[in-house]
Amino acid sequence: MSSNLPEHCVTRLVVRARFCETDLMGIVHHGTHLQYFEAGRIEYLRRRGLDYTRLTAQGVHLPVVEAWVRYRRAIFFDQQVSVETRLVELGRVKVGFGYRLLDAAAGPDVLLAEGSTLLACVDAERIPRKLPAEAAALLLRAEIGD
Amino acid sequence: MSSNLPEHCVTRLVVRARFCETDLMGIVHHGTHLQYFEAGRIEYLRRRGLDYTRLTAQGVHLPVVEAWVRYRRAIFFDQQVSVETRLVELGRVKVGFGYRLLDAAAGPDVLLAEGSTLLACVDAERIPRKLPAEAAALLLRAEIGD
Amino acid sequence: MSSNLPEHCVTRLVVRARFCETDLMGIVHHGTHLQYFEAGRIEYLRRRGLDYTRLTAQGVHLPVVEAWVRYRRAIFFDQQVSVETRLVELGRVKVGFGYRLLDAAAGPDVLLAEGSTLLACVDAERIPRKLPAEAAALLLRAEIGD
Amino acid sequence: MSSNLPEHCVTRLVVRARFCETDLMGIVHHGTHLQYFEAGRIEYLRRRGLDYTRLTAQGVHLPVVEAWVRYRRAIFFDQQVSVETRLVELGRVKVGFGYRLLDAAAGPDVLLAEGSTLLACVDAERIPRKLPAEAAALLLRAEIGD
Repeated sequence: MSSNLPEHCVTRLVVRARFCETDLMGIVHHGTHLQYFEAGRIEYLRRRGLDYTRLTAQGVHLPVVEAWVRYRRAIFFDQQVSVETRLVELGRVKVGFGYRLLDAAAGPDVLLAEGSTLLACVDAERIPRKLPAEAAALLLRAEIGD
Repeated sequence: MSSNLPEHCVTRLVVRARFCETDLMGIVHHGTHLQYFEAGRIEYLRRRGLDYTRLTAQGVHLPVVEAWVRYRRAIFFDQQVSVETRLVELGRVKVGFGYRLLDAAAGPDVLLAEGSTLLACVDAERIPRKLPAEAAALLLRAEIGD
Repeated sequence: MSSNLPEHCVTRLVVRARFCETDLMGIVHHGTHLQYFEAGRIEYLRRRGLDYTRLTAQGVHLPVVEAWVRYRRAIFFDQQVSVETRLVELGRVKVGFGYRLLDAAAGPDVLLAEGSTLLACVDAERIPRKLPAEAAALLLRAEIGD
Repeated sequence: MSSNLPEHCVTRLVVRARFCETDLMGIVHHGTHLQYFEAGRIEYLRRRGLDYTRLTAQGVHLPVVEAWVRYRRAIFFDQQVSVETRLVELGRVKVGFGYRLLDAAAGPDVLLAEGSTLLACVDAERIPRKLPAEAAALLLRAEIGD
């Protein structure tokens, strides 16, 4: 997924595949990947000073309105997965993220899965609303400390 | 689990084990049993005219404060499980349920698991509160239609 | 999603949203939809005499290689959801399904979500293999009893 | 839970509560605690050189045969939870663990939940078998590096 957003709009988080996430095929269930994407996205926000809980308390919610996943390789129990989350779209009421799941041990060349989610900014009654300017600015910045 | 509550304080619900509920041992993951208990408990309420959503809207919540499960036999993908939910304790602020998971095809003699949960009645701020008298009365009745 | 496959290649299954499937937005978590799709897909197979467990025992697996979901309306706790599963692609080694989640109470006009999954036929070592002819024939038939 | 096992038979692992683990009460769903226990238990094994995947490959499985949880305080989205896993029983075919979930920010005085699980040693056909002596010895040792 291409975008004109700054190259620094990316965050990497390592998660370890849990036993409860596997299925009888012996691999991580395909529904789990959306959970990894979500963990990566929350971390993307956190490392830019954007606290999702605080946002929610202010009546700003970002539900997923579209999701896409392509599964490349099986993820096994106990495997360490690097979740690479990239901001790929920033509109008035929509925010798009792209993801790559990589084998944290084998390095960035071993792609396990990739995908994207589109989020809509809504209020507590799920009515679309403009993304607050402060939140938009934080989304565009580099990780704090970089 | 013994109790002095009426024999009609029981509800049976059949659920089918989902693929996503299995783990790499090829059986339903042990955490899933609490989900089956919960589905049985919600059904117990519903069949007595007690709508959990409406209760919640009135500021009455029933979080689980203690849970216990004994696993007897593996539950396999696609297996139909009969969740037997029984009211075993009804106090001022606490409600106790006992559960038996049975093989719905093999009949009531094949016990897959058993367990119990203790719920506390709290308000929206999680402060203990007395269970509303109307809710207590509904909990004690037989299934509607019986 | 359009396809040239027979109109009878569709199955409807009603599921009820579980409490454990909700999140702090008060609605069913977006990852759950893939579990509903999966339940619908397994039911699609079952109603055509195709037992997924037996298939697995024969060394035929159908992992998801791509998934897509568009979320239209929030699904609430205890809501009854009709999962409409349609065969939309049947290749030598790939099988595609399209899904619509509908409000089972409000009727077929209230679309909650839609999506698709693409499955690949692989053996126990996850090597691509041709879908057995018998399985392909069953996938194309109408529900047994229709 | 008391035991005569060495004081060093304990492991602490910090997990962060995921969004998908919350429910409409706004807190982590009570079924999730068993997943945290499991993550703690796997880490307990790993830090003693006991690879659960390798064990499984050798035909040694340790399914949970009994579980108990007492919920003390709500766990909130994004909260960091310290999972303290302690070996409390080591028999010929049974292994018992005790758990405490603590607020990783507030420190060891804020108990969020406690519980226990009893595991049985079985082979690939789920027939009880003696726990291998090597595995038993590793379970009793201190964390590697301590």
